[in-house]
Amino acid sequence: MTVLVAISGWEVDDWVARLSKLLPDRKVVALGEPFDRRDVHYVVTWKHPPGALAGLPNLAAIFSLGAGVDHIMSDPRLPDVPVARVVDPDLTNRMSEYVVLHALAHLRQLPRYLGQQAARVWEDDRFQPAAGDVRVGVMGLGVLGEDAARKLSTMGFRVAGWSRRRKEIAGLETYAGAEALFAFLARTDILVSLLPLTPDTRGLIDRTLLAGLAKDGPLGGPVLINAGRGGLQVEADILAALEDGTLKAASLDVFETEPLPPDSPLWTHPRVIVTPHNAAMSHPDAIGRLIAEQIRAYEERGELANVVDPAVGY
Amino acid sequence: MTVLVAISGWEVDDWVARLSKLLPDRKVVALGEPFDRRDVHYVVTWKHPPGALAGLPNLAAIFSLGAGVDHIMSDPRLPDVPVARVVDPDLTNRMSEYVVLHALAHLRQLPRYLGQQAARVWEDDRFQPAAGDVRVGVMGLGVLGEDAARKLSTMGFRVAGWSRRRKEIAGLETYAGAEALFAFLARTDILVSLLPLTPDTRGLIDRTLLAGLAKDGPLGGPVLINAGRGGLQVEADILAALEDGTLKAASLDVFETEPLPPDSPLWTHPRVIVTPHNAAMSHPDAIGRLIAEQIRAYEERGELANVVDPAVGY
Repeated sequence: MTVLVAISGWEVDDWVARLSKLLPDRKVVALGEPFDRRDVHYVVTWKHPPGALAGLPNLAAIFSLGAGVDHIMSDPRLPDVPVARVVDPDLTNRMSEYVVLHALAHLRQLPRYLGQQAARVWEDDRFQPAAGDVRVGVMGLGVLGEDAARKLSTMGFRVAGWSRRRKEIAGLETYAGAEALFAFLARTDILVSLLPLTPDTRGLIDRTLLAGLAKDGPLGGPVLINAGRGGLQVEADILAALEDGTLKAASLDVFETEPLPPDSPLWTHPRVIVTPHNAAMSHPDAIGRLIAEQIRAYEERGELANVVDPAVGY
Repeated sequence: MTVLVAISGWEVDDWVARLSKLLPDRKVVALGEPFDRRDVHYVVTWKHPPGALAGLPNLAAIFSLGAGVDHIMSDPRLPDVPVARVVDPDLTNRMSEYVVLHALAHLRQLPRYLGQQAARVWEDDRFQPAAGDVRVGVMGLGVLGEDAARKLSTMGFRVAGWSRRRKEIAGLETYAGAEALFAFLARTDILVSLLPLTPDTRGLIDRTLLAGLAKDGPLGGPVLINAGRGGLQVEADILAALEDGTLKAASLDVFETEPLPPDSPLWTHPRVIVTPHNAAMSHPDAIGRLIAEQIRAYEERGELANVVDPAVGY
């Protein structure tokens, strides 16, 4: 039984070696190497070329190397087998580190104070808002969104969540569906995007959405933190909203095009923090172990965890 | 019964007006105004001139406007009456905001990424350490230290605490006393100082202490966060430790001299974050209310909370 490693842009040879070691009783091959298509039972993928997984008659399951599966679900010739995501507690923790760091950095005006430091200026707003004065809204209430919401609450922020489908989470005010989106935005000073990228969410963070954010908050305007997917945001609209005061500031880890092109005005905008899509990067060894465990659980007990619902795309 | 407001460097008139409103049945006077010394029952102070509180025969209690009381306890002519501190939940939350923000900023190398952004560089350490790989040590386990330790733990850091006197805190590894200090430092990658300033702690953060921090951590060297008091640190030793690699980085909110003098090399050190002593600033209205409540509780039930132990100075 062969495990086919179908990866673009992420050290393929390292992944073949890693999975060979974790699954010593299997053949592990990379997409470009020769292999018998009938022998492939599992695919491990990250951004495979569309169509590359067609014609694998004995394929049982596809494993994504990350939490996001938009790179898989957008393949028009995707085989009709279960797609399982990696849900790595380590990745969840790292995402929450990023979200809490950036929420606090905007609350406490860290970029301002770093600028003052460079100019040797000792000056403060004596009575800055506290976390308890600030309403954070988390879009996307999967494992990542729930963990971030819980940790933001611990820090004192007033947190609510929005998801496409109704989620009940103890202690968290939740909004569900398109009809509740603008009520959610209207009470949100810091918007945290942890949504999956699907045909429904592509371009969701646009001018209309940003204009719906709270205008009466204590930060001098709403703040956007997007650590989900670049395809969620319309960067021209974000820049326009920053210019006309609809948006006060942003932390962006993901972009429409990555790496962010050198001529993007986001690089130098004084109220934007750009990070190079590294909010949550699991260690490959941890991901590999989780996938090897998933394959064993599937074979021994028929269990496959974190399976994507093709109807909604995540 | 008069309440004497004895404040240096913090809007005195505003404090007199605020306390007059909160205590309408009392006379509230500022130190420079005429008043009958026999009529003073309470003093509300922030950095009063040493000796200014002597000769108040009916004084019942002294209230500090902040959590720190070193400005009071160092007065050689301090009257022998209880000194009570403000313990404001809002101030506690703000201090923890600062501590968690700066611990995460160093973990996630925020200054590095801001520098890269300025240079339009898209580049990351793929496999940066997670909070769970990093040992934080909190010095000072009063209300502030315990809250910060709890929130750092929630973010995934491996947290331990050190205090002069033994403290048992559920879920927290604690070290106590001078004899355990170096064992505590040896397991600490990020040192958070929330100690009170006393004759015992003055200058504690010196070359010897910094040399005791862990050398085997994942951050490339230990990090110091001092949000306690400037008098705790020896800045020449911190700078030398940054130069010779004993210390990797620091976030300093407090300094030996404040405002930090323009010629201090700390301003421009590339691995130091300087903030203008604003880690935790309560709103004066909240402090005023807490002091008015303390005076009422004392008169009605003889209760005085958060009283300083003169033997240890906090």
